[in-house]
Amino acid sequence: MGVSRIGIGLIGFGTVGTGVAAVLQRNADVIERRVGVPVAIMRVADLDIEKDRGVPLPYGVLTTDAASVIRDPSVDIVVELIGGYEPAKQLILSAIQQGKPVVTANKALLAVHGEDIFAAAVRANVDLGFEASVGGGIPIIRTMMEGLAANHFTSIFGIMNGTSNYILTKMTEEEKSFSDTLKDAQQAGYAEADPTFDIEGIDAAHKLAILVSLAYGTPVNVKDVYTEGIRQLAPLDIQFAKEFGFTVKLLGIAKDHGGEIEARVHPTLVPSSSPLAKVGGVYNAIHVVGDMVEDIVLYGKGAGSLPTASAVVSDIIDVARNRLKGIAGRVPPTAFQWTSRRPLRIRPIEEITSMYYLRMMVRDQPGVLSAIAGVLGANGISISSVLQKGREEGQTVPLVIMTHRSSERAIQEAIRHINALWCVSEPAVLLRIEGVEGS
Amino acid sequence: MGVSRIGIGLIGFGTVGTGVAAVLQRNADVIERRVGVPVAIMRVADLDIEKDRGVPLPYGVLTTDAASVIRDPSVDIVVELIGGYEPAKQLILSAIQQGKPVVTANKALLAVHGEDIFAAAVRANVDLGFEASVGGGIPIIRTMMEGLAANHFTSIFGIMNGTSNYILTKMTEEEKSFSDTLKDAQQAGYAEADPTFDIEGIDAAHKLAILVSLAYGTPVNVKDVYTEGIRQLAPLDIQFAKEFGFTVKLLGIAKDHGGEIEARVHPTLVPSSSPLAKVGGVYNAIHVVGDMVEDIVLYGKGAGSLPTASAVVSDIIDVARNRLKGIAGRVPPTAFQWTSRRPLRIRPIEEITSMYYLRMMVRDQPGVLSAIAGVLGANGISISSVLQKGREEGQTVPLVIMTHRSSERAIQEAIRHINALWCVSEPAVLLRIEGVEGS
Repeated sequence: MGVSRIGIGLIGFGTVGTGVAAVLQRNADVIERRVGVPVAIMRVADLDIEKDRGVPLPYGVLTTDAASVIRDPSVDIVVELIGGYEPAKQLILSAIQQGKPVVTANKALLAVHGEDIFAAAVRANVDLGFEASVGGGIPIIRTMMEGLAANHFTSIFGIMNGTSNYILTKMTEEEKSFSDTLKDAQQAGYAEADPTFDIEGIDAAHKLAILVSLAYGTPVNVKDVYTEGIRQLAPLDIQFAKEFGFTVKLLGIAKDHGGEIEARVHPTLVPSSSPLAKVGGVYNAIHVVGDMVEDIVLYGKGAGSLPTASAVVSDIIDVARNRLKGIAGRVPPTAFQWTSRRPLRIRPIEEITSMYYLRMMVRDQPGVLSAIAGVLGANGISISSVLQKGREEGQTVPLVIMTHRSSERAIQEAIRHINALWCVSEPAVLLRIEGVEGS
Repeated sequence: MGVSRIGIGLIGFGTVGTGVAAVLQRNADVIERRVGVPVAIMRVADLDIEKDRGVPLPYGVLTTDAASVIRDPSVDIVVELIGGYEPAKQLILSAIQQGKPVVTANKALLAVHGEDIFAAAVRANVDLGFEASVGGGIPIIRTMMEGLAANHFTSIFGIMNGTSNYILTKMTEEEKSFSDTLKDAQQAGYAEADPTFDIEGIDAAHKLAILVSLAYGTPVNVKDVYTEGIRQLAPLDIQFAKEFGFTVKLLGIAKDHGGEIEARVHPTLVPSSSPLAKVGGVYNAIHVVGDMVEDIVLYGKGAGSLPTASAVVSDIIDVARNRLKGIAGRVPPTAFQWTSRRPLRIRPIEEITSMYYLRMMVRDQPGVLSAIAGVLGANGISISSVLQKGREEGQTVPLVIMTHRSSERAIQEAIRHINALWCVSEPAVLLRIEGVEGS
């Protein structure tokens, strides 16, 4: 096709942007040997062009004007790394309208406005890559779209937020409170000053919404993804879980029910022997079950400048390969052909079933267990095990009950009754369990 | 392009072939919704067309004539699943000469005759997919070629043979001998009647040779891959390793030394806390380290009809997507552009360095440890720990020594001297250690 170079226009020169520049510079040789032509940064837009980011750029490459990067005729691929909804969305749509392929790491934007962007890309037959939006350096999107394309996905379980996993790992290892651990994480640079998106599960919900959309060929409204963060987690429950052989992880969970999908993010008890339980610190792991391939687990760094840039540059290489062959739209950004997508209902949390961990603070006196067990039984919930610690007649002590599979509606109804019992001193803590035979 | 269907010609209707037919039939809907057109089996060749394989095929699809499958104008993609060197090689070359893309799972053929086949595919600009050749259902080849294409690979560690991993897992859990465990594995269907390729590490060496070739853009002569199997492993050494906090796995290992490559397959001690140590039974896992992404681990079923078929069909989908866009050769089968490959030297085993586990059977009397430590010291090898069990004055007892990093040449020289010592009653057992800080 006579293309002798692929020109990159970067919008956003922060953590990931500088990483992308570093990857393209340091591995220029190996990338050219794979792609066939050099891949070079031609233009970079950032609001702050004075700051030294530690990655050298040729004179004249930097600008504050993002639109000029998109327009630049030497720019073949536009890479959006400013994050947030606007102006990121308008910049991406503008690039697409100008026929320029786009690579982005913007999970929040794709989870909330993905349909508009996908539609524009499909209509214009322009490539759109977003490998870095989920799992950092882990090539999970390409794996689901291509490597496992022969499968119907039965379920997805993911540790997809490094900050919350770092905090949970520390809470588990050091038996410290959430707020102390968050402070440590912020000092260590593993949590942002405003950690809301990470610790409230919102970031994980964004990523799960993207994966569900790709796995099942359905638009997903991220508001339909039930989301519960880790802020309320007590060290006590992490320790009790451990005694039962479980580790608490913030999981994104999706399950197919033949025409309906479960999609939820919440702290989850997983067996301590399971692969996900062992994913510590800022690592991410995604466990997908395909009907043909069975279990596949991908593990790697879920964040960080260079790991995330590795994913961005893999998209750049992908788009470059298409461009060198003179094609676009080889794999639709929606994984399924646009016209083959079918909106699927996301089940409200009340309609799911699960095994449950229930922890109550109860007065230690005769009749308590029988009263609570009675409420559970009346709601059709059967108990698999009970743990009561530190008997002190007349005092308040924790009582932990693990249940067999029951419906969320039943357990919520039971909790309403339990919380109103004379012997229960504070609202019961409810955690869901996954990864157990038959669960 | 007006292509309304992708026609598949299967050569070989055994375990994987029937799996491919099953995947294409069962997931026809989801595959069509992803690809855009139906993907259907048009012709199947097998020497035995009488046997019922449990997967229905339309009348007239089966033939004993493989050449007729390739020639059939309704066949767009030829899938070779007969295994072995010939006639598989001639059939693949014939398909390529007729301009038909090929998908194969034949690792032995690619490891030994890959260069001929790659050259033919590149020259004819015909697609060649071989995802199923390494790691069964795990999409490791696509991950290295595309998902991690921005990286230079620092190292690769893989559990890539399900049979030997099954045997090692059982030997570790049940403390049984190799030969008893092999018999059990054969009865359970996890080992073939002739298990040579699996237990001698040959199959793993084939797979490692393929990965090294793709990772570094170099031809690899599989004979240069040092290969040691698990047949000689004693339960005693597995138990000692456990006491030191290690698990014994048959690993394929590759490391880059800037212009030279290490590539070796042998039983290896890995820390019991490492992700690879926990890969049990017939599962495979591949741990690659990229200079930008750092650690990535992929885990999944390394064998079996449907998991392997999942990988084959992912290649079919990949080639189909190219065909629908009217292109081929988008990603070269060698991962690097053909003209950008550079032959790299594979270091002979004598030139590697490692930490070592040494187990000797020695007479339990004064002066023994000093004699052995003296030999190690004289060869510049320093000891990190020593374990001697079951003291019985004058009897033969096992003595285990773990060393710091030293050269293979030095340790082999030391072993020659140790085996000749008056106090050593049988040849020392040497195992290599990986995954330790600084190793």
